[in-house]
Amino acid sequence: MVVLGIDPGLAIVGWGALQATKGAFRVLGYGCIRTPAHTPVPKRLAAIYADMNTLLSTFKPDALSVEELFWNTNQTTGIQVAEARGVILTAAEQHGVSVYEYTPLQVKQAVVGYGRAEKKQVIAMVTSLLSLKKPPSPDDTADALALAICHASCAQSSLAGFPVRY
Amino acid sequence: MVVLGIDPGLAIVGWGALQATKGAFRVLGYGCIRTPAHTPVPKRLAAIYADMNTLLSTFKPDALSVEELFWNTNQTTGIQVAEARGVILTAAEQHGVSVYEYTPLQVKQAVVGYGRAEKKQVIAMVTSLLSLKKPPSPDDTADALALAICHASCAQSSLAGFPVRY
Repeated sequence: MVVLGIDPGLAIVGWGALQATKGAFRVLGYGCIRTPAHTPVPKRLAAIYADMNTLLSTFKPDALSVEELFWNTNQTTGIQVAEARGVILTAAEQHGVSVYEYTPLQVKQAVVGYGRAEKKQVIAMVTSLLSLKKPPSPDDTADALALAICHASCAQSSLAGFPVRY
Repeated sequence: MVVLGIDPGLAIVGWGALQATKGAFRVLGYGCIRTPAHTPVPKRLAAIYADMNTLLSTFKPDALSVEELFWNTNQTTGIQVAEARGVILTAAEQHGVSVYEYTPLQVKQAVVGYGRAEKKQVIAMVTSLLSLKKPPSPDDTADALALAICHASCAQSSLAGFPVRY
């Protein structure tokens, strides 16, 4: 099963693609889509859409794993993240890829085994679980890989009712 | 100049297309895109994307006029509106259509002449200004026509710094 983890944003979209087989992970690729600041929002969103199409065509994932969105204190950022997320979900749908969403607590539980783990612990566990030579950077990329690990783990476990599928 | 006004949402996207020439408006069409409830969000967003492409291809607008998004008290609705908005802005960009955004106050000021006008006053003025036989329905469609009138009026006036263009 190929899982594409995505951490949405307008400036940076983290992504990580894994092949998961019987609990073992093989990294297919990871990185981030960056869109230039001081550029009109519609242009940045269209760039994300184009790059998402490339990722979906390249990795042909069976599932897309994305973080459940909560309102945060920065309203402008929140709106922009949601706008980018809308574009990402649309691209996934157009490629026939099922979308699964997880809370930060679920991701940390799956990756670290502790729902209140700190970000650096998550990054360390992602690096270790995927046998990476160095921690993935930026954090958005590490978060995307953590989301991919989370879905791969949950999909292969027998936990009913978890994950939430769209 | 052809203006497409859009009132974004996940369940209903209001739209209204106007030809504006020297202060006179000709209605090209109006209505709304509806997406079925109890359907996965990615599927609903992809339907909005497809219908937006049809509207943009049909009316070939010079400008898309959309409401500036504010955080509202209903967080789930707010996220979904922003996700739909992201899809709409992407489609506009892909068609080379410039996007302009207005606050509710600017729309009411342009349509009714009073920034704190009530919704029913806006609908009555839209109906009158466009010589419609009956008030456009649902409200989302009326709001979209009001946004189109707002941009058409502002673009033809000499008010500098208004509107905000993306």
